[in-house]
Amino acid sequence: MSRFWSSLTHDLKPYVPGEQPRIADLVKLNTNENPLGPSPRALEAIRDAAADTLRLYPDPQATALRAALATYHGVRPEQVFVGNGSDEVLAHAFVALLKHDAPLLFPEITYSFYPVYCRLFGIAYETVPLDQAMQIRIADYRRPAGAIIVPNPNAPTGIALSRTEIKTLLEQHSDVPVVVDEAYVDFGAETAIPLVASHRNLLVVQTMSKSRALAGLRVGYAIGDADLIDGLTRVKDSFNSYPLGRPAQAGAIASLEDEAYFQQGRVRVIEGRERLTRGLKRAGFEVLPSLANFVFARHPAHEGAVLAAALRERAVIVRHFTAPRISDFLRITVGTDEQIDRLLSALSRIVA
Amino acid sequence: MSRFWSSLTHDLKPYVPGEQPRIADLVKLNTNENPLGPSPRALEAIRDAAADTLRLYPDPQATALRAALATYHGVRPEQVFVGNGSDEVLAHAFVALLKHDAPLLFPEITYSFYPVYCRLFGIAYETVPLDQAMQIRIADYRRPAGAIIVPNPNAPTGIALSRTEIKTLLEQHSDVPVVVDEAYVDFGAETAIPLVASHRNLLVVQTMSKSRALAGLRVGYAIGDADLIDGLTRVKDSFNSYPLGRPAQAGAIASLEDEAYFQQGRVRVIEGRERLTRGLKRAGFEVLPSLANFVFARHPAHEGAVLAAALRERAVIVRHFTAPRISDFLRITVGTDEQIDRLLSALSRIVA
Repeated sequence: MSRFWSSLTHDLKPYVPGEQPRIADLVKLNTNENPLGPSPRALEAIRDAAADTLRLYPDPQATALRAALATYHGVRPEQVFVGNGSDEVLAHAFVALLKHDAPLLFPEITYSFYPVYCRLFGIAYETVPLDQAMQIRIADYRRPAGAIIVPNPNAPTGIALSRTEIKTLLEQHSDVPVVVDEAYVDFGAETAIPLVASHRNLLVVQTMSKSRALAGLRVGYAIGDADLIDGLTRVKDSFNSYPLGRPAQAGAIASLEDEAYFQQGRVRVIEGRERLTRGLKRAGFEVLPSLANFVFARHPAHEGAVLAAALRERAVIVRHFTAPRISDFLRITVGTDEQIDRLLSALSRIVA
Repeated sequence: MSRFWSSLTHDLKPYVPGEQPRIADLVKLNTNENPLGPSPRALEAIRDAAADTLRLYPDPQATALRAALATYHGVRPEQVFVGNGSDEVLAHAFVALLKHDAPLLFPEITYSFYPVYCRLFGIAYETVPLDQAMQIRIADYRRPAGAIIVPNPNAPTGIALSRTEIKTLLEQHSDVPVVVDEAYVDFGAETAIPLVASHRNLLVVQTMSKSRALAGLRVGYAIGDADLIDGLTRVKDSFNSYPLGRPAQAGAIASLEDEAYFQQGRVRVIEGRERLTRGLKRAGFEVLPSLANFVFARHPAHEGAVLAAALRERAVIVRHFTAPRISDFLRITVGTDEQIDRLLSALSRIVA
């Protein structure tokens, strides 16, 4: 609190990311990081970028990276926008595309950064409740809206919508921008990218942090109609000309070139999720049907906060939210087999 | 232009960075990059960061980097803020500290990103003319202000204020935030950081892009009273939790540890500036007294745009601005001795 702050600054309620603790031998399952490392090719490209050329600014348009993403996803480079993690891409999308007179709609239970952006950028919003099964119901979005954002799969539930449902949402709201936040899409859900060609109101946001195991590099991107990308670029160029450094651009391009590694990593996370889900169910947990790299689970006889604290005492960290309806759940990242075993063994002793 | 954009997006006038052309054997003196490369220790640290740990998010508070900067500058870690280049740090400062009911003041001729931020964030501003010698005159800032920002040295003139003048400005305006943008301070000007201890309204912004030759890595920072830093952190945590990746944090820390390399680099740039200035004067140019890693110069008989175009034909790129009062100037980065020779030789043929 300071008399030198803008009045807006006083009113902010910043997002609180999952902690990055420094505890030895910790089982860290709280921030949906990939248990496997990045592609060795990406690491090599980053090493190669650690050169005299770092004295030069990076390409502000990230031309080569955008071309690589366009090729990878079957779109044109002018349909691709990149940023410093998908959080920055989302922030620019809130300013460029989601701020209108009519309220922005998003799910009542979702990525908790969305209301934070709204407060920062002065965006009116309304939340739409999930149904009884904790699912997003597209029909509930049939109401006046300036824009819509939904994560697919949703966070922290992990439950996905089908591409057909996304298409229905786009067509119900063809006059307003619809952002589909696909941070977790690579672990089994259907991407909406094929709908970009036919739906000028669609922006799809993805990240290299999860499925490409590059959370420490900070690369996110968006794909949509060139007009939407132009809007994002206008905002980005009014904020920071060079959001992605040379190591980030080089590492991201190399990661896209290592398709075999990417596919193997996806499969291992999906297998781990199935193992984790089975183990949690055996321990008496209700587990929502996740298509993400985490599961959202609760135990009928134990409070979420108590479970999270008990796990922490055993050097296992998961994410717990205090919001209504989800305060009894734990969000548990799919770790390595060994991490999953340590989590399940700790949990089974706690709930025994 | 799109019906899906926010009305704000239509009204933006994005900043245009100096181009990053891909021309072989180019003498690139248009974006104030360092002619020498980064510290070898920084490169080694970036290479070491290209590891399996990139699957993990970076420290969102950049604790180790902020501690290293605090030690380096003789302040406390809670007086240090870091961001994705000093442009991002400035953007957050505009939101957190420079947006008030009374207008923000900055020089009429200055870093052209300032009015871009004002438009993006809806900040009222007034510009204060430079004096006849193209200098900032502190006395001219004695007028109602919600906040003030000045670069020191100013860009694109390169002319610096003394620390005593900055102190006067701070004391004339002790009730409003004053940001001193020191992107170029390491090439001979006096930093205002020693004034932070006694002036709660002072925020000093610096970058690793110029004097530490890390433009391609994207690291900037601010130093000020802990209350001001808190405000910046609130905005940052409402925008992007993890602005600096692991390679950036590691490389920046290692650069700070290589003081000998840093000092040698500064000296070489200062010597290059003196050589460049002498050469330009011999060729008939008026050269403003620069303390930056660039000079701002004009020829009495040749238009700036014509000179810039003629240089470009000879594969030498400098920066030219079209704004009134400066359209006859060229902003020329201090390059290597060889680059300076090529520029001077091209210019002498052009103006002959």
